[in-house]
Amino acid sequence: MHFASDNWAGAHPKIAESLSKHTDGFAAAYGTSALDKAVAQTFNEIFEREVAVFFVATGTAANSLAQAAIAKPGGVTFAHREAHTIADEGGAPEYLTGGARLHPVDGPLGRIDVDNLKKAITGYNNVRAGQPMAVSITQLTESGTLYESNEIAGISAVCRENGLPMHMDGARFANALVSLGCSPADMTWRQGVDMLSFGGTKNGCWCAEALIFMDPARAEAFPYIRQRAAQLFSKSRFIAAQFEAYFEDNLWLDLARHSNSMARRMADHIATSGNVRLAWEPRGNEIFAVMEKATAARLRDNGALFYDQNPPHSEKHLIGENETLVRLVTSFATSTEEIDRFGDLIA
Amino acid sequence: MHFASDNWAGAHPKIAESLSKHTDGFAAAYGTSALDKAVAQTFNEIFEREVAVFFVATGTAANSLAQAAIAKPGGVTFAHREAHTIADEGGAPEYLTGGARLHPVDGPLGRIDVDNLKKAITGYNNVRAGQPMAVSITQLTESGTLYESNEIAGISAVCRENGLPMHMDGARFANALVSLGCSPADMTWRQGVDMLSFGGTKNGCWCAEALIFMDPARAEAFPYIRQRAAQLFSKSRFIAAQFEAYFEDNLWLDLARHSNSMARRMADHIATSGNVRLAWEPRGNEIFAVMEKATAARLRDNGALFYDQNPPHSEKHLIGENETLVRLVTSFATSTEEIDRFGDLIA
Amino acid sequence: MHFASDNWAGAHPKIAESLSKHTDGFAAAYGTSALDKAVAQTFNEIFEREVAVFFVATGTAANSLAQAAIAKPGGVTFAHREAHTIADEGGAPEYLTGGARLHPVDGPLGRIDVDNLKKAITGYNNVRAGQPMAVSITQLTESGTLYESNEIAGISAVCRENGLPMHMDGARFANALVSLGCSPADMTWRQGVDMLSFGGTKNGCWCAEALIFMDPARAEAFPYIRQRAAQLFSKSRFIAAQFEAYFEDNLWLDLARHSNSMARRMADHIATSGNVRLAWEPRGNEIFAVMEKATAARLRDNGALFYDQNPPHSEKHLIGENETLVRLVTSFATSTEEIDRFGDLIA
Amino acid sequence: MHFASDNWAGAHPKIAESLSKHTDGFAAAYGTSALDKAVAQTFNEIFEREVAVFFVATGTAANSLAQAAIAKPGGVTFAHREAHTIADEGGAPEYLTGGARLHPVDGPLGRIDVDNLKKAITGYNNVRAGQPMAVSITQLTESGTLYESNEIAGISAVCRENGLPMHMDGARFANALVSLGCSPADMTWRQGVDMLSFGGTKNGCWCAEALIFMDPARAEAFPYIRQRAAQLFSKSRFIAAQFEAYFEDNLWLDLARHSNSMARRMADHIATSGNVRLAWEPRGNEIFAVMEKATAARLRDNGALFYDQNPPHSEKHLIGENETLVRLVTSFATSTEEIDRFGDLIA
Repeated sequence: MHFASDNWAGAHPKIAESLSKHTDGFAAAYGTSALDKAVAQTFNEIFEREVAVFFVATGTAANSLAQAAIAKPGGVTFAHREAHTIADEGGAPEYLTGGARLHPVDGPLGRIDVDNLKKAITGYNNVRAGQPMAVSITQLTESGTLYESNEIAGISAVCRENGLPMHMDGARFANALVSLGCSPADMTWRQGVDMLSFGGTKNGCWCAEALIFMDPARAEAFPYIRQRAAQLFSKSRFIAAQFEAYFEDNLWLDLARHSNSMARRMADHIATSGNVRLAWEPRGNEIFAVMEKATAARLRDNGALFYDQNPPHSEKHLIGENETLVRLVTSFATSTEEIDRFGDLIA
Repeated sequence: MHFASDNWAGAHPKIAESLSKHTDGFAAAYGTSALDKAVAQTFNEIFEREVAVFFVATGTAANSLAQAAIAKPGGVTFAHREAHTIADEGGAPEYLTGGARLHPVDGPLGRIDVDNLKKAITGYNNVRAGQPMAVSITQLTESGTLYESNEIAGISAVCRENGLPMHMDGARFANALVSLGCSPADMTWRQGVDMLSFGGTKNGCWCAEALIFMDPARAEAFPYIRQRAAQLFSKSRFIAAQFEAYFEDNLWLDLARHSNSMARRMADHIATSGNVRLAWEPRGNEIFAVMEKATAARLRDNGALFYDQNPPHSEKHLIGENETLVRLVTSFATSTEEIDRFGDLIA
Repeated sequence: MHFASDNWAGAHPKIAESLSKHTDGFAAAYGTSALDKAVAQTFNEIFEREVAVFFVATGTAANSLAQAAIAKPGGVTFAHREAHTIADEGGAPEYLTGGARLHPVDGPLGRIDVDNLKKAITGYNNVRAGQPMAVSITQLTESGTLYESNEIAGISAVCRENGLPMHMDGARFANALVSLGCSPADMTWRQGVDMLSFGGTKNGCWCAEALIFMDPARAEAFPYIRQRAAQLFSKSRFIAAQFEAYFEDNLWLDLARHSNSMARRMADHIATSGNVRLAWEPRGNEIFAVMEKATAARLRDNGALFYDQNPPHSEKHLIGENETLVRLVTSFATSTEEIDRFGDLIA
Repeated sequence: MHFASDNWAGAHPKIAESLSKHTDGFAAAYGTSALDKAVAQTFNEIFEREVAVFFVATGTAANSLAQAAIAKPGGVTFAHREAHTIADEGGAPEYLTGGARLHPVDGPLGRIDVDNLKKAITGYNNVRAGQPMAVSITQLTESGTLYESNEIAGISAVCRENGLPMHMDGARFANALVSLGCSPADMTWRQGVDMLSFGGTKNGCWCAEALIFMDPARAEAFPYIRQRAAQLFSKSRFIAAQFEAYFEDNLWLDLARHSNSMARRMADHIATSGNVRLAWEPRGNEIFAVMEKATAARLRDNGALFYDQNPPHSEKHLIGENETLVRLVTSFATSTEEIDRFGDLIA
């Protein structure tokens, strides 16, 4: 019962097949091959506009280099307090931007509160304080919740008022997309998103992360930025091969639907459980549940793998004294059997 | 006839098989899986000592982060004028070290001249000039030549006198190794090499680059350095899987022997050619040849892919007025037929 | 009535005299002159130990380069939420450390709360979060309050437990010192302070800021760090000349006593005022007072210069709806007449 | 006999007087005082256009931050091999630009050769090599020579062709100006100079360095860049006070004429000397002379202070086996007596 993280799974068989298929033969290096170009074209189709796509090695790279691409001296990026780019990237954004600051913004369940955002931006208004440089949101959030499309638009309105580019960390983009049931364009640029970290790794690829600029004009210097950050793969088509399979016949959406439905199934088990409760309603493939520490220990003894989680700043009250908050993540590789076995254990 | 670069080839079938084999199942992320650990152990065996191994995304990352790991304020790395880290990494070493300088050292055919090195180091001896920080050599060099073991020892002696760590860029490590016919330990730490960029990508992997610290004590801060540089893969075992196959039954040495022998075969063709001559004797899988520009055009018209090359600083005299220097690179995927077809064209 | 800031004053006549006195003659540049050395010796005497002293251009430089001197990859400095290094240095610490993070710690009235500090440090304990790197306190704080000596020791105990160097921002070091009535050694290294930004500018110099390492062994690389940051003055003795006069006959302590006493006198006026109240008790030369906005406007109309101040995070409740918090800063140049004239206006 | 450097002198009495004059009183900090503004206006008049002027602490800061202001990812600044920004700034430009590279360009006697410059720029033409970002010249050069106005225009023509901003390091701007006998505008923007490090320190100030943008529009982000680099003085008017006196009644030109004439007088002595010869013709206040090492020792024994100098790359042939090249620098404070005493010693 693997619920530790969606990056504990390997790759989907079709991803592996695609890599095998492209094993032979020669192709231009550094992202200039026919396959690289074909995948770039697929991205254009998916986003219903010409976008600029850059493969990078990790989600952290995509998030950090997005900020590097629009960095200013004394610049400040606003993100949710629990955002990956603040909490889990080991200083990469600060380092790769040459010292930008990440300002944590509060809001319930991983979502930036618009009023808090406005107030935070206002604090940076002169040479001594620094200057606002970007806003970054995460979709799915780190709490497994979502921004509705109009909520994205609400944040981008603040960005526009302040002349700030808007970035979306889409490490679980597909999970959010199928949950909202909208199109990639509707979840991004139509709501004002300028840059997107598009993650394939957590949804069935080995290593397939891309930074997307919705307006290619914004990306003119980015080839230099990526190379300077040592993020330009020589045999770049091994990423392209993964994305080719990922998009073919909408595999990516199917995989995300599967992992979301597994999470739904688990949530249903929890809803009827006597000793575990949902901390809040899940919207994708991450469930946050509260249980007694003894229960967590028993589940682990019975083979369930999952992490304890610090409760979000806004939700500390949810956890009782002997209780713990746990995160349960499903993936393309999660099986009904695993979920139901877990359900039996908490029944 | 693909002689443009060894990174135009895809992956060797056994590498692809290994990826397929590891596609299923769950494993701890971020380099902590059983497979990651097993591969680290294999590196220990190959180098006949406990080493610290860190996978990174690119050779440029390995080279740059090696320098970041030992960076000093006002620090200067000495490398050959044509070294990849100086000529081809788009400023990554300068950027990822926070502004270290790369000082170009001359020497014939891609090899640092010891006297030039000594003299260059002497120039950095105070706060205003900066301070020496590292020496980096490339094995195979960018000119397809080699340092003999005692030449490596000669350079490391200068490093020791000046208290400088020594780095080896081993993007074509295997090609050099089988050419010298010595052991990995003999080509590295036994001659004083402290850090090694160990490249698998050019020799049959999709993406398999590692930075190796010969003394793990030197690597204590490196996990933070790698994360900060956005170079920590989540599904790290996809690199480990490649290295597993790479080392199994000495595949890596076989692949390097093959590509070297293909280069040898091509050199033999050139030796008997009336219109192409070797610029200098090849030692691995890269051949540098001089021909008339018209000959180069004719070869390309007939399907040969290769790049013109600026002659090394030391060898400009070799190229006549209507001539060009070209680089011909063989790989694990080069076939005898390709070589012989090229041989026929230049006969 | 100049209460805007202590850096609105010019220089004390004795500082100017000293500069005039040293105008003639030749002396070695870049901090190696006899006068530079004599002043360094004076610092040793003042601190009752051999220290390493480096002049820099600004307090921001001292604070930022102190952090650069002990920077780690993914490193985090803990400072009070309102600390100058967080709130007013325009990203200099982040930039000059190559991307370190400043983590704001709360505590009443500009003073770090020890429990909050412990908790904040605990949050950085792995590669993804980053690693603790330093603690910085301000003495006088930005709220014009003080750490008692034992409070400094309490914070340094946390530093020691976590292996962290401790920095003190002493932009108003002299004001704090005479307020506590202890020796420089007692306020710094005897309580565990490792690095001190020693400010003379706000206390009567034109431009006299120094970074002091209590243990010179820690400063070995610092000459390179300072030069790399473009902070090494060529005619360094113009700083030394200011410090010479600053320390002669304890001028520095006299000036600080004067400005503190001017603040005390103003506080006494406020204590008896019907329309202004002290926000909290001042400990040095900065007074924070609450008054109606109309009163503030009236005072300004009558020639009083001072800034409104955002209330500290911990003290927002102090300010009523139509009220404002103002900061009133006295300096060596403040006269009794100015204070009493202000006193008359608020009587 | 002080010929070690023009920064061994103190300050001119009128500079000291001006500091004394402005000692009293209060003025807005951080460069916003009336005096700061008046001096900015004087710069406009001197340059016959509206310019943007920023005081910084050192010439190294001016040079480095000029580059930071126009930095690009993978960017490369071209400067003469012996330029201060390459040879003497301890890595500050690389550090403060976040890793830009300085590419040394050869040319006789400290002057960039246009053909070499063109060729060097051509080498940076893609993501792997990096991209050209600026050209920096020094006027007076480090060899005490000059660019004629048309030579400056020749270099700026190359800049324009390549879309590169042009920077002038004017640490000895005044010495060059009076030597050429032209106006500040004629020596800078009328020839295409975009940014100027304007140095007053070597010509009689204590510490008066400014970075000037000929087009203020280029400087929009610079207030943030300066603050982030910890180079914004709080009592900025102490710099302004120096510049006020510096420009009053053309003091700066008089001082430069004096030091140049002292150098001329020394050159005349050398011309008739039997045992010292001019290495090349001086154009400002720096003389380079060749003498036997024994002669140099004898001069030092007799009280002459000066440094040996590595011969420029282009002039190594000038120095015989037992000879040394020495640099003799005059300043505003050099007296006829000193020069003539030296003349007697070498007669």
